[in-house]
Amino acid sequence: MTSTLLIRNASELVTVRGAGGSPRTGTEMDDLGIIKNGAAAIEDGRIVALGQSDEIAARFSWADTVIDATNKVVLPGFVDCHTHLVFGGSREDEFVQKIQGRSYLEILNSGGGILSTVDRTRQALVCPEALLERAHGFLGTMLAFGTTTVEIKTGYGLSQESELGMLKVIARLKDSGPVDIVSTFLGAHALPGEYRDRRDDYVRLVLGMLETVKTGSLAEYCDVFVEQGAFDASEARTILAKAREHGLKLKLHAGEFSDIGGVEVGVELGATSIDHLEHISDRGMALMADKRTVGVLLPGVPFHLMTDRYAPARKLIAAGVPIALATDFNPGSCPTLSMQSIIALACRQLKMTPAEAISAATINAACALDRGNEVGSIEVGKKADIIIMDIPNHRQLPYWFGINLVDTVVKKGVIVRSTNGYTDEALLT
Amino acid sequence: MTSTLLIRNASELVTVRGAGGSPRTGTEMDDLGIIKNGAAAIEDGRIVALGQSDEIAARFSWADTVIDATNKVVLPGFVDCHTHLVFGGSREDEFVQKIQGRSYLEILNSGGGILSTVDRTRQALVCPEALLERAHGFLGTMLAFGTTTVEIKTGYGLSQESELGMLKVIARLKDSGPVDIVSTFLGAHALPGEYRDRRDDYVRLVLGMLETVKTGSLAEYCDVFVEQGAFDASEARTILAKAREHGLKLKLHAGEFSDIGGVEVGVELGATSIDHLEHISDRGMALMADKRTVGVLLPGVPFHLMTDRYAPARKLIAAGVPIALATDFNPGSCPTLSMQSIIALACRQLKMTPAEAISAATINAACALDRGNEVGSIEVGKKADIIIMDIPNHRQLPYWFGINLVDTVVKKGVIVRSTNGYTDEALLT
Repeated sequence: MTSTLLIRNASELVTVRGAGGSPRTGTEMDDLGIIKNGAAAIEDGRIVALGQSDEIAARFSWADTVIDATNKVVLPGFVDCHTHLVFGGSREDEFVQKIQGRSYLEILNSGGGILSTVDRTRQALVCPEALLERAHGFLGTMLAFGTTTVEIKTGYGLSQESELGMLKVIARLKDSGPVDIVSTFLGAHALPGEYRDRRDDYVRLVLGMLETVKTGSLAEYCDVFVEQGAFDASEARTILAKAREHGLKLKLHAGEFSDIGGVEVGVELGATSIDHLEHISDRGMALMADKRTVGVLLPGVPFHLMTDRYAPARKLIAAGVPIALATDFNPGSCPTLSMQSIIALACRQLKMTPAEAISAATINAACALDRGNEVGSIEVGKKADIIIMDIPNHRQLPYWFGINLVDTVVKKGVIVRSTNGYTDEALLT
Repeated sequence: MTSTLLIRNASELVTVRGAGGSPRTGTEMDDLGIIKNGAAAIEDGRIVALGQSDEIAARFSWADTVIDATNKVVLPGFVDCHTHLVFGGSREDEFVQKIQGRSYLEILNSGGGILSTVDRTRQALVCPEALLERAHGFLGTMLAFGTTTVEIKTGYGLSQESELGMLKVIARLKDSGPVDIVSTFLGAHALPGEYRDRRDDYVRLVLGMLETVKTGSLAEYCDVFVEQGAFDASEARTILAKAREHGLKLKLHAGEFSDIGGVEVGVELGATSIDHLEHISDRGMALMADKRTVGVLLPGVPFHLMTDRYAPARKLIAAGVPIALATDFNPGSCPTLSMQSIIALACRQLKMTPAEAISAATINAACALDRGNEVGSIEVGKKADIIIMDIPNHRQLPYWFGINLVDTVVKKGVIVRSTNGYTDEALLT
């Protein structure tokens, strides 16, 4: 049986429509396709009509459920296109050490850093139920803050067995819903301790893992952390080229602390996105703009790490690079679950306008996951992933920072979160 | 009839006790008086017992209500000791102009700045019900994020009639509860347009307003905004000396954009707190430390205004100045309602440890309102304003930033907010 949901009287219906599944660049990012006093009708989880509230409400007067969005903004659900959401432990002690000015090496020597999370995650994978439950809780908080699609990377296993274990946890999260999950294999996240003096052996191990990933169709993307102390551009090329042969799409971590050629490799191999970019050359920007490679900016990282070195968002936008935003949720460099907090940081630290930040957190983030035809905007035919925020215009989204402005979350046409009594409690699993 | 509430099994019961109603200074700020596996018993809105969970739970086994705080942190409710919570309108357009790099003067010329909020507030005061309802909504969000006591300033009226109107709105908020309100008269917030060329007349008007404030017992504090373009040190001395004669306690805004002598006047006249302090001399710090004047730091302001000039918290702590934290909630320079976001900023931007930031947001903030004997710590005899956070240790409070970590809020012994079914719905007014 078809059920129809009508959202009407929106002060602003922010459609972000019109890019035809492609990411927005330059001044397009400032155009949100806003319908004032707008309405949207939804059937079978898809958007079937959009327009002026009076007209749409008349056409769908028989809707089963009606949400009145008076004085509210209706937006596409946020797409969080870069996270490391499955992990054991937490690293608040390392955070306190950073506040106190301890150096990277001191922190490493006292047991901090990525490898400490690898230890905790490997331990947790022995009995993955707790890991799964925790990740599910994280996704629930993300959903409550308006995120309806989330990319999740492996990379805290770093062995054949534990990377596979992480992929299975991610697969189970995918099955449990309601948040849509995109799975990324990041075996090349760090060099595990047991391979400290055998880099080449580890790269070979990652290439071997790719066979398993391919055989089991366990991941859609392959990612490599290109950085001093992690993997160099040549290693990245080897791993990503093999991944591409196996039919995986590509992502890279590049330019977080230094620019060592990751952007060039990513563009050359046709990566869907290149992420971080706190350090990027003018040539790198031109290459990305030319190929329309999405640049995923993660302003929560310099904020949390207190490095004060943010990605040059204005230069990237001026150069024509399509910019997306994501949390980078992880226990070491960015423990936030809220895309609202990332948008707030993007406006203040990256000097993006509220409209640019919203484009970056919706349609461009969807494109960073090759989902630009499916989610990221409110358009007829697209999946009805929609959030309603308790603000009269979208410019207030980053303005009232530090709280949760989301009032209602509609996932694939179903109301999954609501502060106003619309919620079907049975859905809040 | 006496009803008893027992909170038990707290992973950390953060008491912040032991200062005897005085603010903490120096290394004391890092000592939270934590009881691991702790419990607290509450009767008639007061804390009656504290200690190890097994012992307290046995003594109060007959409690009417029991909250299990396993894996959670129990803290004193936050005291937000500096806000401008009652106002008309909002200033997101000014925020967007700042992102785009417009100058202060350009913003002023296009209708921004404090005086635009004065216009909107004066209009709203004609029929104050909407203003009251909105302020009540703000307080509800603050409470949900863990704030149980809030100071509110006037200063968007700037005429006898409208300043009085603001004081009456604040008085009605005080009556409507459950958040405790402290009222501050800030007639000297800005020079209203109609007095542009008559500064002395406006200062005289403020002195006249003080008579009304005194007669009606309408405010506990008098505050002055000491700043270039607002009021100078001499005008502040005139106003605050008169306020003191009338029995009001004193506060100052000083050093937000420049140091023009506000600290010296505040210390001389015995102010309870001096707030902002982004600009303060070593001599100013020594004076404040000597008199134990509380320095209220507002890191949300440089964050929102993107000035990147934060108060020298580490120097202030080293000098022995008792530091408190507050939101400064207002539509121009800091639109956040969450003390959690302020603590997250204090750790990253002011380099305060989580323990120091918690001391600053609880006991020292209570002292900034002369409420150190009443709230701000969990001690036998104090008002039972207690929050339970869904984290296993207090260091995670600033760590998982951008979301709401509060699980349960107990105000004067009554559960007023809960995500776990403890809430009496009737209390959620």
